[in-house]
Amino acid sequence: MYRVGIDIGGTGIKFGVLDDNLNILAEKSIPTCTSDSFENQIGRIAEGVSATAFAAGIDVTSIHSIGIGIPGIANRRTGEIILCTNMGWSHVPFADEFRKHIDVPVLIENDANVAALAESIVGVSKGASSSVFITVGTGIGSGIIIGGKIWTGFHGIGGELGHVIFDLDGVSCSCGNRGCLERYCSATALIRMAHEALSKESDSLMLKIVAGDVSKIEARTVIDAAKQEDPTALQVYSRYIDCLSQAVASIVNFLDPEVIVIGGGVSKAGSFLIDPIKHEFVKYVLYKDQPMPEIKLAECGPEAGIIGAAMLS
Amino acid sequence: MYRVGIDIGGTGIKFGVLDDNLNILAEKSIPTCTSDSFENQIGRIAEGVSATAFAAGIDVTSIHSIGIGIPGIANRRTGEIILCTNMGWSHVPFADEFRKHIDVPVLIENDANVAALAESIVGVSKGASSSVFITVGTGIGSGIIIGGKIWTGFHGIGGELGHVIFDLDGVSCSCGNRGCLERYCSATALIRMAHEALSKESDSLMLKIVAGDVSKIEARTVIDAAKQEDPTALQVYSRYIDCLSQAVASIVNFLDPEVIVIGGGVSKAGSFLIDPIKHEFVKYVLYKDQPMPEIKLAECGPEAGIIGAAMLS
Repeated sequence: MYRVGIDIGGTGIKFGVLDDNLNILAEKSIPTCTSDSFENQIGRIAEGVSATAFAAGIDVTSIHSIGIGIPGIANRRTGEIILCTNMGWSHVPFADEFRKHIDVPVLIENDANVAALAESIVGVSKGASSSVFITVGTGIGSGIIIGGKIWTGFHGIGGELGHVIFDLDGVSCSCGNRGCLERYCSATALIRMAHEALSKESDSLMLKIVAGDVSKIEARTVIDAAKQEDPTALQVYSRYIDCLSQAVASIVNFLDPEVIVIGGGVSKAGSFLIDPIKHEFVKYVLYKDQPMPEIKLAECGPEAGIIGAAMLS
Repeated sequence: MYRVGIDIGGTGIKFGVLDDNLNILAEKSIPTCTSDSFENQIGRIAEGVSATAFAAGIDVTSIHSIGIGIPGIANRRTGEIILCTNMGWSHVPFADEFRKHIDVPVLIENDANVAALAESIVGVSKGASSSVFITVGTGIGSGIIIGGKIWTGFHGIGGELGHVIFDLDGVSCSCGNRGCLERYCSATALIRMAHEALSKESDSLMLKIVAGDVSKIEARTVIDAAKQEDPTALQVYSRYIDCLSQAVASIVNFLDPEVIVIGGGVSKAGSFLIDPIKHEFVKYVLYKDQPMPEIKLAECGPEAGIIGAAMLS
């Protein structure tokens, strides 16, 4: 039997057909098209599955299940997508609609949970009985694995590390609250910190990199300038690392998984990101003289979404 | 077979002998005596077990296991107590020393975890597949139950909700860090908030209750004055409830257990504590239109420590 994994992202939808050994037999992608009706969007996704199955040389009737990772939340039992902002979906009967096209079991899961599962099956947390995956990008996503399975909580609304209170009455968050963890630990937070620093100090390599246009500063800008030891960038990055370290230590103090995995766009900084965190987080852990979680960089890469989705069960 | 539960607290050590149906057949207690040598302390605890077994009319040879709840951390595998500040113990071989007196399996666990287990077996979270127990007293303790079992993490250092970062760079904590959750949600935090308010407003029922001696203000003082609608006390208590609600919502957003149980000294305020939290926490939950955890008051009372400890396995 074959498994299909679908990764619904901000700009594109990726499809993969996997065999029992988790080899990707074929991959395809289509752009997202949010202006289309829900029915048409589902039609295009079903066509994507058929095309990928064809490219893999298999018939859709030999598909065991289709797993879908979404930047949002779904009801796993009914297959309803409760919220998927960047597709414009709110309370849509995804599985029911999809199965009008291809009648196989459809499993829907949050994309950070899917990435967490991929790492725990074929990636850096493989074999770990428990892990927490943190995806550090525009926001902060997270996935908790306990006993080899995704833990989304009893009601399916857990795993949202980004919206844990981290700074009481702090920076306003898009969710409506203040001081959410992602306001201090995401790429967006790093950019905000850079803006704040540059409002006080205009002599910085960061400004040279963006030719003086502050609005063009990305997480990469800060990281590149910090690598070149620009004092302002180093100060901003050091503060950012401190925030991430406190977030990692909070996970240790509360949940203490075997492994903590850091992925997402910012994790492309590699050892420049993970090494200082490994060094810093320990001082925020309550029981410092005890064995504690390993902190690792995600390794699955862009195919994590497809692999993890295909492995949903 | 019979089980023994021991609850090591700040001022006394409680013993209970339970039968298979979790009935407490006999109970005893002795004062803690921290000036004594470790060996003598263990000797007194073993004597306490023998005396309680005698009172229950059973022989120590019919004891299945002895469970012990401590305000601290232990290595469950070796039976070493790693840290138990109020007994003056650091890296002591508790189980080995105890078994020189009574040779039965000895299981040691953090007291908040023990209370969480008791609630999940005979208390308010009975039957819940997952729960988080928060004990709100001088500090904040917590216990996580997943699949009916205590979750202390892979390395045994989890379940320390009180030391999750809640207010970046905030109030100094006894652990050495700043902004730990217990600095905002414990009885100690409520007292600090009252002190802060009274430094600006001296016309308050709180001051009348303590005859003008600010140092005598307890959590109960604030709660009693707030119940009588003293404006300053109401303002302080409302802020405190807001902090606790944000803490509860953080647990929901990250772990989403079936039930969240609030116990500890402050929970004696009953519905005056739990009703506003139930009302407030929802606004800090990310997915507000979904089913979410029930928030309940602990119900096990002073015997939770004995019952939970006896049920350790």
